[in-house]
Amino acid sequence: MKVHNFNAGPSVLPNEVLYKASKALIDFEGSGMSILEIGHRTELFMNVLDEARSLVKELMQLEDDFEVLYLHGGASTQFMQVPMNLLENGETAAYVDTGVWSYKAMKEAKSFGYVDAVASSRESNYNHIPKQFIIPPQAKFLHITTNNTIYGTQWQKMPVTDLPLVADMSSDILSRQLDFNKFALIYAGVQKNMGAAGTTMVAVRKSALGKVTRKIPTILDYRVHIENGSMYNTPPVFAIYISMLTLRWLKEQGGAAAMERLNEKKAGMLYSEIDNNPLFRGTVAKEDRSRMNVCFIMDKPELEEEFLKFCKKEDIVGIKGHRSVGGFRASLYNALPYESVEVMVEAMKYFSLKKA
Amino acid sequence: MKVHNFNAGPSVLPNEVLYKASKALIDFEGSGMSILEIGHRTELFMNVLDEARSLVKELMQLEDDFEVLYLHGGASTQFMQVPMNLLENGETAAYVDTGVWSYKAMKEAKSFGYVDAVASSRESNYNHIPKQFIIPPQAKFLHITTNNTIYGTQWQKMPVTDLPLVADMSSDILSRQLDFNKFALIYAGVQKNMGAAGTTMVAVRKSALGKVTRKIPTILDYRVHIENGSMYNTPPVFAIYISMLTLRWLKEQGGAAAMERLNEKKAGMLYSEIDNNPLFRGTVAKEDRSRMNVCFIMDKPELEEEFLKFCKKEDIVGIKGHRSVGGFRASLYNALPYESVEVMVEAMKYFSLKKA
Repeated sequence: MKVHNFNAGPSVLPNEVLYKASKALIDFEGSGMSILEIGHRTELFMNVLDEARSLVKELMQLEDDFEVLYLHGGASTQFMQVPMNLLENGETAAYVDTGVWSYKAMKEAKSFGYVDAVASSRESNYNHIPKQFIIPPQAKFLHITTNNTIYGTQWQKMPVTDLPLVADMSSDILSRQLDFNKFALIYAGVQKNMGAAGTTMVAVRKSALGKVTRKIPTILDYRVHIENGSMYNTPPVFAIYISMLTLRWLKEQGGAAAMERLNEKKAGMLYSEIDNNPLFRGTVAKEDRSRMNVCFIMDKPELEEEFLKFCKKEDIVGIKGHRSVGGFRASLYNALPYESVEVMVEAMKYFSLKKA
Repeated sequence: MKVHNFNAGPSVLPNEVLYKASKALIDFEGSGMSILEIGHRTELFMNVLDEARSLVKELMQLEDDFEVLYLHGGASTQFMQVPMNLLENGETAAYVDTGVWSYKAMKEAKSFGYVDAVASSRESNYNHIPKQFIIPPQAKFLHITTNNTIYGTQWQKMPVTDLPLVADMSSDILSRQLDFNKFALIYAGVQKNMGAAGTTMVAVRKSALGKVTRKIPTILDYRVHIENGSMYNTPPVFAIYISMLTLRWLKEQGGAAAMERLNEKKAGMLYSEIDNNPLFRGTVAKEDRSRMNVCFIMDKPELEEEFLKFCKKEDIVGIKGHRSVGGFRASLYNALPYESVEVMVEAMKYFSLKKA
């Protein structure tokens, strides 16, 4: 029995990935060893790592200047690692503040240089993506968070700038078509759209590195990881294996273009119900609505607990909203089947009729 | 079919752990979700994390001053994180250099203060543990690497000092009885004796923290992880789950005391064969021999390739020595069955007879 898993991350994965991984835990590729027991410098694992890195490059259609790394530490590590590697003391970086995660990224950058918060929707509890802002031309890069998990907003059009663009894509990577080559550095904790918790993918232009003079701890220097083929230290073997399997699945489905079609269809159906069902209401500006995290509340908040319980009975899990927004959040990542959204919409319709 | 897995890490795990994990990958505790799909702030995962942290505390018999953390990043991250948190600019830390890993730890510490290498066996290719050295009384801590995977040496008696002791125990944690309370901070990549690659255990005395004035990036500040119950950011869920299962197994076996008996028996049998078989020879000082990594060479190096091939036919894997030592290295971590060492010794005996 599988539930309808709307978790915000870690989140639903394709069944094929789970079955394959479950077998690999007992015996990996006929080696007589579990995937957890093989040496990380053996051909067995090098093939996994190489395939994962190649699949990222292929699926994102990245130019040759890009290197793809699988690092330890989550996006929260990138918050400090990015400015440590890209921002010289005394220089300025521009950040657009669209939620808790971009705010945290900004905070960490302040240890390495000046931070210019060029725009923020903090005052309105991050219910929209700022549209009008001036980017200081002397800034070293512009940092954005392409999708804001907690609030359910998403950049629909990337900002136009001559500055190197840096993006945290943890919650919408490979969920839609994008010209990834417009960026200088992209990072993503893989546990939403391209794997399970335990590793972070960094795609970085080699030409963007080596421009700061500070002494960078070896393990935090992107160049060290590039030189070592993303194998400077023992990598998180299993997390990379799961990401590789998830990317294989993603490719079989038709890549980012197919994911975009599916995700538009899923989000469209759910937003349509929210807009048409008198009990529910969306929480963010319509033009900035995320296709990954659909946030909504009830006009009668006293019904929310009851609706949650009703959903639980229908095997719908993970839809409780973040405490800072309240209400509900349904996350519709790549691996969430269309059918789960149908069940969700049916539940909303049925609950609404019951209450009419 | 299981092979005899002498890998240096990632390495062999108990079968019970692998079977349990394989099932949890499909359905975790009847939740209808994989262990990879559950939210990290749900009770389901909090129970896993709490149990893992408690088991570490119990099995290491740590005093209340200790906090146990499961962090991202591997021991190589601790090389810089330890001095960043414990060493003030201008202060001195003492290090004993017993191999590549302690050397790397020393190198990273130099970014944060002065490093006094109080002793080193580098000149003799790290074939022993230095015994005579003077520890500067003004040093802030003394750092040692309790077991040296590449060379096969191990501290049999801990250094006696009034300084806070810091230890990298990545390759022998919980493999023997030790008074862990003699230390101020212990770190260990879990992939050898207490889990699979993907997380690092840090046991740190709260009283040792908060004494440096530098600005520490949030994600690298031990105090932040303590305040957040080792959940500051999305943790490496699966790696922590595997560690919890491995610790459960370890407790069922009888804890560190039982592991010590088993590991002494395994290592004793193998070293005895090395000392008695005319074809083989140990590479390190007898009194410093590691019970975790047994390094040896052949008197006739031209036979080594043939012996390796012979072992492969006997399903013995992972015994090729590190390139800086050559010959062979058999790693006998906690989960390696006694029977695997018997098979190895039989292979050595048989090969020797064949060549006599």
